[in-house]
Amino acid sequence: MKCTRCRERAEVHLRQHNSAFCRPCYVGFFQRQVERAVHKERMFTKDDEVLVAASGGKDSLALWDALIALGYRTTGLHLGLGIGEYSISSTEKTQRFARERNLRLITVPLAEEGPGLAISTVASATNRKPCAACGTVKRHYFDRIAAEHGFAILATGHNLDDEAARLLGNVLHWQREHLGKQSPVLQPNHEKFARKVKPLFRISEYESAVYAFMRGIDYVVDECPNSIGATQLLYKDVLNRLEAAMPGTKLTFVQEFLRTGQPAFAIAEAATPPQTCARCGMPSFGDVCSFCRLVAEVDHKRPRVVSAGN
Amino acid sequence: MKCTRCRERAEVHLRQHNSAFCRPCYVGFFQRQVERAVHKERMFTKDDEVLVAASGGKDSLALWDALIALGYRTTGLHLGLGIGEYSISSTEKTQRFARERNLRLITVPLAEEGPGLAISTVASATNRKPCAACGTVKRHYFDRIAAEHGFAILATGHNLDDEAARLLGNVLHWQREHLGKQSPVLQPNHEKFARKVKPLFRISEYESAVYAFMRGIDYVVDECPNSIGATQLLYKDVLNRLEAAMPGTKLTFVQEFLRTGQPAFAIAEAATPPQTCARCGMPSFGDVCSFCRLVAEVDHKRPRVVSAGN
Repeated sequence: MKCTRCRERAEVHLRQHNSAFCRPCYVGFFQRQVERAVHKERMFTKDDEVLVAASGGKDSLALWDALIALGYRTTGLHLGLGIGEYSISSTEKTQRFARERNLRLITVPLAEEGPGLAISTVASATNRKPCAACGTVKRHYFDRIAAEHGFAILATGHNLDDEAARLLGNVLHWQREHLGKQSPVLQPNHEKFARKVKPLFRISEYESAVYAFMRGIDYVVDECPNSIGATQLLYKDVLNRLEAAMPGTKLTFVQEFLRTGQPAFAIAEAATPPQTCARCGMPSFGDVCSFCRLVAEVDHKRPRVVSAGN
Repeated sequence: MKCTRCRERAEVHLRQHNSAFCRPCYVGFFQRQVERAVHKERMFTKDDEVLVAASGGKDSLALWDALIALGYRTTGLHLGLGIGEYSISSTEKTQRFARERNLRLITVPLAEEGPGLAISTVASATNRKPCAACGTVKRHYFDRIAAEHGFAILATGHNLDDEAARLLGNVLHWQREHLGKQSPVLQPNHEKFARKVKPLFRISEYESAVYAFMRGIDYVVDECPNSIGATQLLYKDVLNRLEAAMPGTKLTFVQEFLRTGQPAFAIAEAATPPQTCARCGMPSFGDVCSFCRLVAEVDHKRPRVVSAGN
C-alpha cells in the first residue's frame, strides 16, 4: 500500500479515514489533526500557557509531543498516583520524557499530600472503587495546580476511544446531565476552574499509539491494574466490534453527538455553576467538595498514637 | 432454584428481574407484563378491535396468544412475504396457529399484489437491499389493511431486543428525527394511520421464546435468510454482551430513553404530519408515497410482450 500523500511505501492504514501514510507523512497528518482540533474548537492559541496532564501513557505524551512540535507553550503536570509499580514506571517515563526534551514538568506525588493520598490508600480507607477515588483526587489536583500556577487551560489526552466509551456509558443510562456536559472544550464556570480541553478527541487510541511509536516516545504500555474488568474497557471492546464491522462508527458517534445530539441536552440542562468549598476554596457542588470529604475519610482512618489515659 | 411466586421448582431464571418462575407462574408473569404495558402506555382497551401483525415468529405469536388469554379482541394480519421456504413455513405456521384457536386471520400473499411484490422480486427489480424493500412494503400493507378493515389499532411483536437494537442504531448516528419518534405507542397523524403499539417492548427475546415454548406455540425458529449479516443483528449481539456483563442494561437503555432521553428530542422535532399519496391515498411524505414509487420501479422492470414492429 502507498502513502496517500507522497506515494512512498505506507506504514499505517487508517480505514476510517480511507488513507494510508508513510512515517513522515503520518507524523504530519497526526499533528495537523491536533492543530485542527485546537483551532476549530477554539481550545487555545500560541499565546496561551497550556498545562498538559501527562500520565506517562501514549495519549498524553503523544499530545504533549505534538503540541511542542506545533509551537504551543506547554508545562506538564504529572500526578504520582501511588498505584504500585505501575505508578513508579509512569512517573519515571514522564519525567524522562520532559527531561530529554527540556520541558517544564510539575510532579505531585499523591502519597505525600495531606494524610497520604496514594490511590490504593484512599480506596481502601474510604471503601470506594479505586477508579472512583482516583477520579475525585485527579480532578481536584488538576484544578488546584492549574489555579495555583495560574494556568487558564488544562489539556488532557482523552482520545476518540475514551470519548466514545464515555458517551456510550452516558447513553446507555441516558444521563442527561453528563450528556449535556460531555464536550472537547469545557468552559470554566468558577474562578478556580481552568478551561479543560481534549485535543485528541477525534483521534483513535490506535492513531496515538502509532504516533508515539513513530516518534520514539517511551510510554507506559500496561493498562492501570485497577482498570481490569472496568466497565469502560467493556464499552471500548464493544465499540471496537462495531468499528471493525463498520469503520468510522466511533467517529460518527462522537461527532454527530456533538453536532446534532448534544444541543438537545444542553438546552435541557441549564448548568448550575459550582459554589466554593468551605475547606479548600476549590469549586464544589456542596458546602464541602467531594475531594475534602474524601480526605476527611482517609484522615479519620489513619492509625493514631493513642494516649496512655485511654 | 425455586419459583419466586409459589416456591415450586423454577424452570426459568430472569437475571434482569432477579426472579425465577415455574411454568404456570411464568405464563402468568408474562401475560401480566403484557397487560401492564397495554394499560400503562394506554395502548388499547378491551373494547377495541386490535389488528395483530403476525409473522409466524415467536414474538408475534406469543403476543397474540397473550392478548387472547387476557381477553382482548384481536384479528391477525399475516403478509406472505415471498422469501422462499422461510415465507412458506411462516404462513403455514401462522395459519395453523389461527385455525387451531379459531381466530380471525387476514392473509395477504404479496406475490399476488400489484405487479407481483414478493420481497425477492421487489429487491432485485429495484436494486434495494431486501430489508429496506421489505420495510417499505410491510409498512404500507400494515397501514392499508388496517385502514381498509377499519382497525384503529395495530399491534406488532417488537420486543426489548428489537427496540434496544433500533435505539442503539439511532444513537450511534444521532438520528434525531428517529429518536423523536421511537416509542411503544405511535399516535396516528393521518386519517389512514392506525395507532401503532408494541406491547412487548419491555419483554426480551428470551422471555418471549420461553413463553412460546411453554405455551406449546409452533413458531418459525429460523431467522429470515435476508437478515444474515444485517446491522440489526450486530447491534443485538453487542447489546447481549453488555447485558451478560451488566444484567438489565437493555431494559435501562430503553426505559430511561423513553423517560429522560426522548423528551429532549421530542421537543426538538415538531413532527410534520404526512400528506396523502396521489396514487394510493395512503399517508406519504411526498406527492407519491415510497411504496408507490417502489411499485412503479417493479412494474417498469417487468418483462413485457414486445411487439413485432420493434
